[in-house]
Amino acid sequence: MDISKIVDKVLLTPKSALPLYSQIARVLAENIKNNALPAGIKLPPERELAALLGVSRTTAINAYRQLEEQGLIITKVGSGTYVADLTPSLQPTPAVPWSQLFTPSPNIQLSSILRELIASAAAEDIISLAAGMPDPALYPLKHFHRLFSQQSSHLNGSDLGHIPTEGYLPLRRALAARLIKKGYNITPENTMIVSGSQQGLYLITKAFLEPGDYVIVESPTYLGAIQVFSAANARLLSLPALGSLPLDLLEDYLIRYRPKLLYIMPTFQNPNGRVMPIEERHKLLQLAAKHRLVIVEDDPYGELYYGEQPPHSLKALDPYGGVIALGTFSKILFPGLRTGWVIAPETVINRFALEKQYIDLHSSNLSQKLLFDYLSEDLLDGHLAFVRTEYKKRRDSVAGALKRYCSPYLTFALPSGGFYFWCTLNEGILTRQLLHEAGKTGVSFVPGEAFYADDSGSRELRLCFTTHPEERLLEGIKRLSKALHVLANNNTGSHERRAVTPII
Amino acid sequence: MDISKIVDKVLLTPKSALPLYSQIARVLAENIKNNALPAGIKLPPERELAALLGVSRTTAINAYRQLEEQGLIITKVGSGTYVADLTPSLQPTPAVPWSQLFTPSPNIQLSSILRELIASAAAEDIISLAAGMPDPALYPLKHFHRLFSQQSSHLNGSDLGHIPTEGYLPLRRALAARLIKKGYNITPENTMIVSGSQQGLYLITKAFLEPGDYVIVESPTYLGAIQVFSAANARLLSLPALGSLPLDLLEDYLIRYRPKLLYIMPTFQNPNGRVMPIEERHKLLQLAAKHRLVIVEDDPYGELYYGEQPPHSLKALDPYGGVIALGTFSKILFPGLRTGWVIAPETVINRFALEKQYIDLHSSNLSQKLLFDYLSEDLLDGHLAFVRTEYKKRRDSVAGALKRYCSPYLTFALPSGGFYFWCTLNEGILTRQLLHEAGKTGVSFVPGEAFYADDSGSRELRLCFTTHPEERLLEGIKRLSKALHVLANNNTGSHERRAVTPII
Repeated sequence: MDISKIVDKVLLTPKSALPLYSQIARVLAENIKNNALPAGIKLPPERELAALLGVSRTTAINAYRQLEEQGLIITKVGSGTYVADLTPSLQPTPAVPWSQLFTPSPNIQLSSILRELIASAAAEDIISLAAGMPDPALYPLKHFHRLFSQQSSHLNGSDLGHIPTEGYLPLRRALAARLIKKGYNITPENTMIVSGSQQGLYLITKAFLEPGDYVIVESPTYLGAIQVFSAANARLLSLPALGSLPLDLLEDYLIRYRPKLLYIMPTFQNPNGRVMPIEERHKLLQLAAKHRLVIVEDDPYGELYYGEQPPHSLKALDPYGGVIALGTFSKILFPGLRTGWVIAPETVINRFALEKQYIDLHSSNLSQKLLFDYLSEDLLDGHLAFVRTEYKKRRDSVAGALKRYCSPYLTFALPSGGFYFWCTLNEGILTRQLLHEAGKTGVSFVPGEAFYADDSGSRELRLCFTTHPEERLLEGIKRLSKALHVLANNNTGSHERRAVTPII
Repeated sequence: MDISKIVDKVLLTPKSALPLYSQIARVLAENIKNNALPAGIKLPPERELAALLGVSRTTAINAYRQLEEQGLIITKVGSGTYVADLTPSLQPTPAVPWSQLFTPSPNIQLSSILRELIASAAAEDIISLAAGMPDPALYPLKHFHRLFSQQSSHLNGSDLGHIPTEGYLPLRRALAARLIKKGYNITPENTMIVSGSQQGLYLITKAFLEPGDYVIVESPTYLGAIQVFSAANARLLSLPALGSLPLDLLEDYLIRYRPKLLYIMPTFQNPNGRVMPIEERHKLLQLAAKHRLVIVEDDPYGELYYGEQPPHSLKALDPYGGVIALGTFSKILFPGLRTGWVIAPETVINRFALEKQYIDLHSSNLSQKLLFDYLSEDLLDGHLAFVRTEYKKRRDSVAGALKRYCSPYLTFALPSGGFYFWCTLNEGILTRQLLHEAGKTGVSFVPGEAFYADDSGSRELRLCFTTHPEERLLEGIKRLSKALHVLANNNTGSHERRAVTPII
């Protein structure tokens, strides 16, 4: 085969943006792909190609190199350069059907509620009372800025390599010291730093739950917990959590199902704001001890009280040793730290560390170092006092506005701490209708259904009162009121329960 | 019952460090616990208690409050204060048998090798050639210090709230732009930021592997991959990865087992340093397309070449769309960033995001922001050029020292990139013996067994040549040589294969 015929077709443009060798490679590539240069044919040596084209040998070498990188030619040492066999790679294969390759997907339904919310919150003129976030304007950035700069001068390599999976030891020590003051009977070995308390929940799930295991959850409860337990294929038992905890029903569950865990938020429950009284805490612990129940106590809001300090945590009161506690800096400082903690017996911490190794080796060095510095300077309590005062004001304004603008369509109990109003709509208005209407008036919230493992919550909703300054919160409530009034006036009985119709 | 008798026993010490109310609470608590004040008995009202003890009413209130927090007394509104019923909580229950409550534990055996290593590396006078770490002295801290301080002035609340699970969008864009220059055909939507490429591996496992699924791994391969796949109860098929890849065996596996994934490091393989030639990459991709195999390409070391630039990645060459790629900043910058990435079709990224939500919501804001700033200032390529030069020098010194001091007991091939020497010991010396002996002479490494899913590797070991300055590396090799000589002189046939004896 006369390669020179093909080479003759190579028209070089010396001033092109494309280098000469790329121009040569391009023409040869075309001829290889359209089979004018068939597989297996030997190409001229570089020196010869250079001479044929009147270019330098380096240009010829680079042209071949580029073709080689594209897999179009093969160099055999001591033998020469050949056109590669492309047949198989040119056979088109259909697109990979990725979604068919996945493991069964957890819980898409609830996630879609969340995604809808996130999408609506992102819309510009919507006031979001949905996300459970502290107000970014209150983040103690001044201190963190200073700590950043200080850190700049004393950061060193060893802080930025790998640290233990259980967490940065100075931070674990500082955290343990803080919790001991709050009545916890622990050592630093009972603590583990995790990437947000969400990761703590995930580790608990990995270490304790097998598909089909029973988990008791309050009803309503934190959406993220419902999701992570459901994704592990656990079976959820709902324990109504309004008024006092139904300990008789709990005992029934314990005898009937032998559940692996009870997941509970005894202090400023999310979403309903409930605080479990001290006697109830003792009774719950006694029942847990009697039936050997493991309790997972989630306490993200305990430090955010707007009246009396709440009772000691279950973990602090626990006489039997069956409580695992979760905490986080996300609500009391800011979510971007991605730092929470787990408190548990050392055996449990060891198992969690084994699981966490597979997940991410360890949590962020930067956040852990910064938090250690922040705690060391004893700044947290001052910040807490400050946000308590501020959030209390906001709570009171929102409560007033809800009464003024949303009565009689909406009722609520005043929360004594935490981030949320848990509201109930009058008969005749459904939360999903309200969410839709509120989208038009420019406010969003989390519909009650998101907090139930069953299909309850159709007339409930959660409003967060901490994320925005007072004025914007009030504007949000006014917009909610507008949506409520539209619905109250137009409603034509769509609250009727849909009958189940067979699909044929 | 006459409470005054008990109150009489309260001896108050006004100047004690313990406040008066605590002193009172302490005595009452003792009497409650020893049943001198039995359950259900009514205690005097606060005013009366104050009078009895000659203290202020506030002190009496605080004493009751403390007892209430301890769960020892109960206040019934409108009725008074009563001693709580402690009987059940005083019944001792046996300690919780935590380890029996856990789900079956993954892979303890390999983890114990790692833990042993970490423990030995922590010993002060040991030179660790074990961990695969860049040298902390070479971290570009000067730049990160400056970026920290700059960040201080323009960090704002919205950067520190929640960001999308898929990652900080500006970083995803910068990463995609960088990879496109390296031949990848992607958009930012094909990228996802993860907490180290370990988390990428974990997400792949969660999304694709069910117990019993087959995964092909190179043999030897990265320990962390063996661990995470085994923990998911996948069945590992070993593909020998010395010399050229046995594509015929691979095809046999593909036909015989229909494996879910092939996990492969085509460039500077960990541990053996191998680079897959370009033709082999094309052939592998053709075979993958033919058998519809999903390839997971891990490429932590591709930018760390000490001679020619390695060929394009599988992901960049992939004509069929079945490659998922993993990368990380841990080896090219520093591990403490805990930031890696996954490149995959958007459908796959969406599924990973769903899984990651459960695990930690999203990765560290601080690291992602800093990395975006670092990439924006176009600093990475300069840093890479610098470390390549430095690591190349170290590789050459270590190669020389190994030849000079460890011949003829140990052989190796010179790696053209990456972090490691993969060495083979002479017949007659086992790696485990050497590790033991090396502990005495003061050097450590990773024994070959750690890199195999089967029981191979008993005469192989991995040495990392990047973590320490040249002088310390050379001292490490001398210590290794000392251990080798001790074994070579003393060895009395312990390399014999142990026979399997029935245990009766």
